[in-house]
Amino acid sequence: MIYKRTVNYYETDRMSFVHHSNYIRYFEEARVWILEQFGLPYADIEKRGILIPVLGVNVKYMRYLTFGDNIDIDTWITKFSGVKMSVGYEVSKNGETAAKGESSHCFLEAGTFRPVNLKTEHPDIYEAFSLMAEKTKK
Amino acid sequence: MIYKRTVNYYETDRMSFVHHSNYIRYFEEARVWILEQFGLPYADIEKRGILIPVLGVNVKYMRYLTFGDNIDIDTWITKFSGVKMSVGYEVSKNGETAAKGESSHCFLEAGTFRPVNLKTEHPDIYEAFSLMAEKTKK
Amino acid sequence: MIYKRTVNYYETDRMSFVHHSNYIRYFEEARVWILEQFGLPYADIEKRGILIPVLGVNVKYMRYLTFGDNIDIDTWITKFSGVKMSVGYEVSKNGETAAKGESSHCFLEAGTFRPVNLKTEHPDIYEAFSLMAEKTKK
Amino acid sequence: MIYKRTVNYYETDRMSFVHHSNYIRYFEEARVWILEQFGLPYADIEKRGILIPVLGVNVKYMRYLTFGDNIDIDTWITKFSGVKMSVGYEVSKNGETAAKGESSHCFLEAGTFRPVNLKTEHPDIYEAFSLMAEKTKK
Repeated sequence: MIYKRTVNYYETDRMSFVHHSNYIRYFEEARVWILEQFGLPYADIEKRGILIPVLGVNVKYMRYLTFGDNIDIDTWITKFSGVKMSVGYEVSKNGETAAKGESSHCFLEAGTFRPVNLKTEHPDIYEAFSLMAEKTKK
Repeated sequence: MIYKRTVNYYETDRMSFVHHSNYIRYFEEARVWILEQFGLPYADIEKRGILIPVLGVNVKYMRYLTFGDNIDIDTWITKFSGVKMSVGYEVSKNGETAAKGESSHCFLEAGTFRPVNLKTEHPDIYEAFSLMAEKTKK
Repeated sequence: MIYKRTVNYYETDRMSFVHHSNYIRYFEEARVWILEQFGLPYADIEKRGILIPVLGVNVKYMRYLTFGDNIDIDTWITKFSGVKMSVGYEVSKNGETAAKGESSHCFLEAGTFRPVNLKTEHPDIYEAFSLMAEKTKK
Repeated sequence: MIYKRTVNYYETDRMSFVHHSNYIRYFEEARVWILEQFGLPYADIEKRGILIPVLGVNVKYMRYLTFGDNIDIDTWITKFSGVKMSVGYEVSKNGETAAKGESSHCFLEAGTFRPVNLKTEHPDIYEAFSLMAEKTKK
């Protein structure tokens, strides 16, 4: 599914282009957005006492982006087990790929930071994530 | 007292200079630093259950700053009552003023967000802030 | 005119709310957006060789904002002379004011940083800004 | 070589910890710093008309960092050919690894964005990078 976004001025650096760290923020926006599309607003997940921290992230930069660019961020679940999840991203502008990346995550209980198994502990959320994984599969 | 800092690349924007929003972050760094100089690390203040949110901020931009610039942020308490506090900032580079600003704050109890009167509720912190206000007076 | 925006996760800090520096970035987004509504995309203005740096900014924080909040940023021109401009902002959530602010700007020639008088040097842009000032007047 | 840094308040998010995107910025700071230690200030490299954009980056997050933490960023050259370079990073706190990462880069001519071969075009810079690669080897 494609999250759409326009590049802000404050996201550029003096090389004239979007600073490379901001792609990680765009990925987060896209991830939050796709959760919402599948009825899983992240704010609600947090209210259920679940955190989804980032275990790892990688980005490959291929074309520059700059202020005012309208970008598409294709976003999909690459892996989901109920204990861990990975998300893939492809950023493009005018149909040309500008960057690709992936983030990996686990599920933790807020407060204790204990790992959570969604399948056994939150089966409704598990089902929603499974559906999202299936529907966004490439 | 003067907090010293070097401008990072990611703090510039495509106009080539430090993005104006980052001065607000520099002010925060300087404020945290000056608290520490007076034996009041902000992390410790938070552990005592006190938050110091920002009620207002203003900045006047006078000269550009860019990547690699070594800047001085002169920082002082402009007002302190035990209930509210204001902090003044003057950013300079090579002795020339680049920006001036002020932030105003109150003291709140973490969790309840109830206003806190340091004088009656945390007299030791009140004393430390009073000393800082006196010593940094212009 | 009202610019709409949702608060991102990465814009919050550990006090749980939007970091105060980010309002300055929201103001910039709203300013860029309102220029576009009046046929003045900032990227085009830059292509004409005109920069609109920030001379000053102030914000008064009144209510907290946090992740997922849908915010309205009412944005209007408070002053415009062809040489300088000020912009007013009122951020609200569910109809309640969360912050108010103003930014002031001048117009410079890219490269030389010479002040530009839009009225005499770029009359078409002057007209567009004048119209925007009139239409957004409070 | 170890770049030292304290975590700023504005770098945390409402999960209470440093937002994962900021590690990418810490890496940039460490990279700029290590260049400076070897007599290659990045601002000077830019003045010579050379840009060092980021082609890719990855981070593995292992322990949380938060406001006030004093962190060490061990930084070293993992590859250098005169045409491309990779840099490794290990972030630790109190001797415990908090994150590991790597960034890859090429060298471009400012303005044209033509790839630059340091060995033939800027032999003095090539020598300095080679020395840095050798001295920081793990």
